Amino acid sequence: MPSVDLNADMGESFGPWVMGQDAALLEVITSANIACGIHAGDWDVMAQTMRVAVAQGTGIGAHPGFPDLQGFGRRRMQIAGESLSNLVAWQLGAAQAMARAAGGSVRHLKLHGALANMCAEDEALARAAYEGALRVDPDIIIMVLAATAQQRAVEGLGCAWAGEIFADRAYNDDATLVDRALPGAVIHDPDLAARRMVEMVQAGAIVTESGARIPAPVDTICLHGDGATALQIARAVRAALETAGVTLAPFAGRRGAAG
Amino acid sequence: MPSVDLNADMGESFGPWVMGQDAALLEVITSANIACGIHAGDWDVMAQTMRVAVAQGTGIGAHPGFPDLQGFGRRRMQIAGESLSNLVAWQLGAAQAMARAAGGSVRHLKLHGALANMCAEDEALARAAYEGALRVDPDIIIMVLAATAQQRAVEGLGCAWAGEIFADRAYNDDATLVDRALPGAVIHDPDLAARRMVEMVQAGAIVTESGARIPAPVDTICLHGDGATALQIARAVRAALETAGVTLAPFAGRRGAAG
Amino acid sequence: MPSVDLNADMGESFGPWVMGQDAALLEVITSANIACGIHAGDWDVMAQTMRVAVAQGTGIGAHPGFPDLQGFGRRRMQIAGESLSNLVAWQLGAAQAMARAAGGSVRHLKLHGALANMCAEDEALARAAYEGALRVDPDIIIMVLAATAQQRAVEGLGCAWAGEIFADRAYNDDATLVDRALPGAVIHDPDLAARRMVEMVQAGAIVTESGARIPAPVDTICLHGDGATALQIARAVRAALETAGVTLAPFAGRRGAAG
Amino acid sequence: MPSVDLNADMGESFGPWVMGQDAALLEVITSANIACGIHAGDWDVMAQTMRVAVAQGTGIGAHPGFPDLQGFGRRRMQIAGESLSNLVAWQLGAAQAMARAAGGSVRHLKLHGALANMCAEDEALARAAYEGALRVDPDIIIMVLAATAQQRAVEGLGCAWAGEIFADRAYNDDATLVDRALPGAVIHDPDLAARRMVEMVQAGAIVTESGARIPAPVDTICLHGDGATALQIARAVRAALETAGVTLAPFAGRRGAAG
Repeated sequence: MPSVDLNADMGESFGPWVMGQDAALLEVITSANIACGIHAGDWDVMAQTMRVAVAQGTGIGAHPGFPDLQGFGRRRMQIAGESLSNLVAWQLGAAQAMARAAGGSVRHLKLHGALANMCAEDEALARAAYEGALRVDPDIIIMVLAATAQQRAVEGLGCAWAGEIFADRAYNDDATLVDRALPGAVIHDPDLAARRMVEMVQAGAIVTESGARIPAPVDTICLHGDGATALQIARAVRAALETAGVTLAPFAGRRGAAG
Repeated sequence: MPSVDLNADMGESFGPWVMGQDAALLEVITSANIACGIHAGDWDVMAQTMRVAVAQGTGIGAHPGFPDLQGFGRRRMQIAGESLSNLVAWQLGAAQAMARAAGGSVRHLKLHGALANMCAEDEALARAAYEGALRVDPDIIIMVLAATAQQRAVEGLGCAWAGEIFADRAYNDDATLVDRALPGAVIHDPDLAARRMVEMVQAGAIVTESGARIPAPVDTICLHGDGATALQIARAVRAALETAGVTLAPFAGRRGAAG
Repeated sequence: MPSVDLNADMGESFGPWVMGQDAALLEVITSANIACGIHAGDWDVMAQTMRVAVAQGTGIGAHPGFPDLQGFGRRRMQIAGESLSNLVAWQLGAAQAMARAAGGSVRHLKLHGALANMCAEDEALARAAYEGALRVDPDIIIMVLAATAQQRAVEGLGCAWAGEIFADRAYNDDATLVDRALPGAVIHDPDLAARRMVEMVQAGAIVTESGARIPAPVDTICLHGDGATALQIARAVRAALETAGVTLAPFAGRRGAAG
Repeated sequence: MPSVDLNADMGESFGPWVMGQDAALLEVITSANIACGIHAGDWDVMAQTMRVAVAQGTGIGAHPGFPDLQGFGRRRMQIAGESLSNLVAWQLGAAQAMARAAGGSVRHLKLHGALANMCAEDEALARAAYEGALRVDPDIIIMVLAATAQQRAVEGLGCAWAGEIFADRAYNDDATLVDRALPGAVIHDPDLAARRMVEMVQAGAIVTESGARIPAPVDTICLHGDGATALQIARAVRAALETAGVTLAPFAGRRGAAG
């Protein structure tokens, strides 16, 4: 019987500015990626988010990003590998402390925004980021975008990891995402998203736009809380997976090469 | 045979801006208070400072301050108790991660600048700050300004702590510091500073300007790296203590009320 | 025939975080106080806000605050007078540039949050803040909280200024605001707020909770865009003033002592 | 009789952190590029730097950079053209205000660090940056790296501009800089630097490593204040130019295509 994790980004408010629908999402997801105060979030937002995640029994993850608050970590920045290791270690430490203060602990780490995109393309950069995290906690589970340079980096590092697919994005036949500029690249229909996720989880594969199946480590599904239908998609995916008999639970983490 | 610790603030550079004489001070001190990237320091500076402190066997402390980089954490800011707990927890977490990544660990915590001054006057505020740290690490040793509200806070909390005196400041008969505006408030003469420290450590007391002795927990001596004679004072204090047969070592931490 | 200005704070979004109901408020007000990127706003938010204010013919003001983004400029900070002058000058300059780039210009300046509160209590501090602005533009109109140290500061400086009252706050008989902790301190009833404003504008006086009238420079009324009934209050005040035959227009600025 | 301007970056201290040798450089240069508080500098540093530049009669320039204080604006960042226009306008405004408060005014603008490098390669990006400045002050003189996309951008815009060459960098035969990794790329010998500058100014051309002369708008020479021999080079260049009868004065600005 297959099992999968549902994850979403949380704790992205800052000071007086509220973002996201954390409370609603927490009823759907099994793992939360919590911003660390650098691209979003602050110590007070983190404390509050950790408290709620701990109370809910959600798997807690650190979600480090670039030091670019105005750009929400979505703008690419040049960064040296060693500095990236430090940046990730630092944010993980802040997350660990806030989790501990709330009676919980950080199980996983997922990169945010432009940093995630750059590391999905550049294995050496991904490796630098993950090494920063592993120096702080050798047992942390690294969440990677399946079938990208992120995955190759964790396979090479031999650390615990989990593969992630998107609920609302179409895939090309080489497992890359369909360009957002193309029609159908972003899925807005909750039913379609839900059917695809059940199919991918049961197949242990990415199902591409053309219908091809690429075997992939489908350990967790990325859900969103923003956008008109995001929450509907999240709920539809969860309901369809439950109906299909899929167990929804935080990933245990795998080691070594996938497949 | 008496023992005492020598501490100094370190890792206060930021980005391209260098501050302090960390390398020279590390040869004198036994404990380092390392800035956490909020009022000074950044992830790269912290990584480097932690590496050196670990290599040197120096006791490592987190040195949290106010989120005021331009003001170097020296300007008072209004802050709610709960937010202060979060601010301190967050900075401690960042320091723990960077220490761990360097193969070390954080033993103690000392408040910086205006935050330290405010907590030396306001026990409830000090308590909020320290509770933030203790939620993250119940065994951390809190370094407090001896005979201030900081000390009363740790005595009430029942946590491990160490009392600190200044090498270069004159004391009033109520154990407060002589106002900087008055002559003699700041000691610039290395020999005078050294003689006073030997006397205070041997007496287990603060020796005031008038010569009175106020029993106090003299666990660590605060040294500085800036100013014309700071390094000379630091070296003179260390040399005089060694000559007097005082053991120089990181404090073990005491619990409960002093004396 | 009396005339009055209606003002509100605007441009308080930051990066991806949206705040306020600027579009709706712009249909009510005659002057906008635009955040300068330090406690809120950023260059992109400012550019957009200036464009809309220019298109609408709204009087444009700079709204400088403390360098405390997380605290939204609402936490008191210690600041030296000369540094405050610089801080205000700098923010005014940024606002002037963004106004000019949008085809407009900055007519007035109003202090924000904790900085405004501190300057309402401390004439020397208010003077330092305003001197910073006047060094940049000697003709700028300073918007002051009527009957506070802010007003005394501009009277002393001999600069152009305008007096402000609150639509939604009750006044004590000494012209200070009723403590928020007391019942009735904050007015939530749009009709009540509107009646009071018409009375005050026609009387040229602050009407206190007890019904006393204190002659005051009622040049502009502060409206809000946040809170459940804020927008209703704003609209009710405007409608009632129009019905009463009061001209709604940006203030011209007065000089010297009021009354 | 040829004339040239000597420029250097200034006001790059931040809060308690001091950088550069501004006082010494001010005795050599005729134009100062003053950091605007975003990649370096703050309102207090700017106020002080402007005061000194005004007292000295130095031509004042705004020196905007990326919002990356830790990286000192030296790390490339992704930025949309419109946002870059806003970023530059905003920093120029801050500089204008601080100049005005000090009794001076901003004559020119020069991009800093990674932003300058990106705009030297990408004409559209340079255009976006300069348009931001020109919307604020249509008469500002844009200082550009001669023979780069920066120069093409100002030629296209039809604004006032000045061409800049480096005192301490060797040029390739296509007018690009010799790669720093190659021997001789950076010139450390004050005499060599001085001889080259006299030759280039007199020739109105960039003289390459191979001795070729590329006609170029040699309006200003970039000097540095950091590094072991920077100040010596600056002084040697000035002395050699004076000896050669070259007038040292702020550039007047040219319009349209060079040559």
